[in-house]
Amino acid sequence: MGMLRNEILNIAEYNLKQYPCRIKLNQNENPYELPSEIKQEILSRIAAEQWSRYPAFVPQKQIEKVAIFAGWRKDGVLLGNGSNDVLQLIISCVLERGRTVVISQPTFTLYKLLAQSLGAAVREVPMVGSFLFDVNNIINVANESNASMIILCSPNNPTGTCLSPAEVTRVLRSTRAMLVLDEAYVQFSKGTCCSLLAKYEQLVILQTFSKALGAAGLRFGYALSSPDIARQLGKVKLPYSVNTFTLIATEVLMARWDMIRGWIDKIVLEREALHCELQKLPGIRVYESGGNFLLFETLEKTPSHLFNELLKKGILIRDVSSYPMLERGLRVSIGTPDENREFVSALKEAL
Amino acid sequence: MGMLRNEILNIAEYNLKQYPCRIKLNQNENPYELPSEIKQEILSRIAAEQWSRYPAFVPQKQIEKVAIFAGWRKDGVLLGNGSNDVLQLIISCVLERGRTVVISQPTFTLYKLLAQSLGAAVREVPMVGSFLFDVNNIINVANESNASMIILCSPNNPTGTCLSPAEVTRVLRSTRAMLVLDEAYVQFSKGTCCSLLAKYEQLVILQTFSKALGAAGLRFGYALSSPDIARQLGKVKLPYSVNTFTLIATEVLMARWDMIRGWIDKIVLEREALHCELQKLPGIRVYESGGNFLLFETLEKTPSHLFNELLKKGILIRDVSSYPMLERGLRVSIGTPDENREFVSALKEAL
Repeated sequence: MGMLRNEILNIAEYNLKQYPCRIKLNQNENPYELPSEIKQEILSRIAAEQWSRYPAFVPQKQIEKVAIFAGWRKDGVLLGNGSNDVLQLIISCVLERGRTVVISQPTFTLYKLLAQSLGAAVREVPMVGSFLFDVNNIINVANESNASMIILCSPNNPTGTCLSPAEVTRVLRSTRAMLVLDEAYVQFSKGTCCSLLAKYEQLVILQTFSKALGAAGLRFGYALSSPDIARQLGKVKLPYSVNTFTLIATEVLMARWDMIRGWIDKIVLEREALHCELQKLPGIRVYESGGNFLLFETLEKTPSHLFNELLKKGILIRDVSSYPMLERGLRVSIGTPDENREFVSALKEAL
Repeated sequence: MGMLRNEILNIAEYNLKQYPCRIKLNQNENPYELPSEIKQEILSRIAAEQWSRYPAFVPQKQIEKVAIFAGWRKDGVLLGNGSNDVLQLIISCVLERGRTVVISQPTFTLYKLLAQSLGAAVREVPMVGSFLFDVNNIINVANESNASMIILCSPNNPTGTCLSPAEVTRVLRSTRAMLVLDEAYVQFSKGTCCSLLAKYEQLVILQTFSKALGAAGLRFGYALSSPDIARQLGKVKLPYSVNTFTLIATEVLMARWDMIRGWIDKIVLEREALHCELQKLPGIRVYESGGNFLLFETLEKTPSHLFNELLKKGILIRDVSSYPMLERGLRVSIGTPDENREFVSALKEAL
């Protein structure tokens, strides 16, 4: 054990406890599943491939399709085994002991964990008001700490908060740090900041197929950046990070955007309906969200009480009360209309 | 670009050039492909899964099957997206600027690249004689440099050289470094060093399904280590690194070990036959190999001449002449009997 770096030894172990459930609303997954004829189309293409052969060293065809799909140049696209894989690559290429990263809190826990594992300093800027990004403070802290990187998640997990392109532009103009913008949930919001990539070399955008595209089990994500940054990151990126199965499946998914667009529209409608329902409940404060989930606070009962009462009825949501500032917080993913209805009625009973 | 660490900027870009070919003997892939009824069995199990859901946070069932398959305790198994994924994790948890890793040369290029990207010092110990590991010198250099890690590949890519359990034991007894033993090709050799894991806490063994198991396209590998090391590495390992498709496919592969054992026996027989053939050729010096490939040197023609002459006939092998000590080296993977025959006759013509 003596050989492991101290930062690793000092990190706390993390485990997502698995609960058996009937209605799974804890991981912001897409509740819709590909129709079986599309699955069969994908599987017969997979059957025709040679599984014993490595995928292409650089899967150029898929990179080009992702570039068109995302609306960015192909030499600025890096594919990964989920967007966290690319995030880890970027963090490891920039951060180290003696460098600083600025994040907003509360947010996705992985940013801080990965930065700390490298010994980097993590400066955390609290959200303000109804969990809004404190853009001025993010800029000030980044400049004052001479930060190498800022990581922001928009729509933000677990609060649902979105940054406007104007706010993102302000961060880019006012600091010299690399800005990593995690757009994991962007398809459920008003829009991506991709158009800023052409103008700001220090912007890196992460997107994933795990949420809106309904492919969490397939592991597919990517970074969009300037060609220079993509080239540098590519030097230490492991080859073959996306397997043959997933390269084929995601190609078909992109071709079926019309169907996926339909899922997204339904989920957004359901999110707004569920928001209204929760607003009506005494003892609950719910927040606006640009993602496929809602953050709510319980004003009387404890989060763990509500979590457990729902679980008894087979409904699994996420207790986020261990996150900074969210002592009373719970997060629920948007499911199918039936699932959401069941969730609301179980929540009413639990209150 | 100013934000990227200097080590990244200083690394040379690497690309494996892709050549269209008829007979592919350049990546040490298994030339045998799963029979279509087994593929169909796997695909119908995949069809029944929910692709929109994340795989298990810790895929306990598969970990247990790998533990039985590899003959090691389940709390000492870490699964990854290919063994390189786990290798990168281990290197990043141990190495950093100011620390040293010892490797033997020539060997797999990724060890040095990953260590350098972290700013670690890389001490390279040349092989001796007919590309044998210089175990004494490896031990001396590790002790003298107070190395944190030693990485050895056995059977070694691209030389085919094997370390005996006695040699591995000597390294473990004589140094305090973590020993990462890459056994990517172990099934083609006389045997694994797994039995040493119980005795030596600083040993980590890497194995993969990309070679003997014929699943390079699926991306599956794992580390075997002490439970303590596995627990520490697990703290910074990204979850969901193996996707749903691959978790299912590799489970079925392990259950079909009898069939795979047959492939391996055929490949080993072919390797020995090809070794005899190459030994007969004037102008060629071929080395013993414990892998599914052979290293040979060309004494008269240049490596690039032979490479190109073979490629003209649609046969792709690997020119390894840019590796240390291998100015005249080429590496050929063992294919099917027909492929190997075609390779020999094309090589004869090229000489």
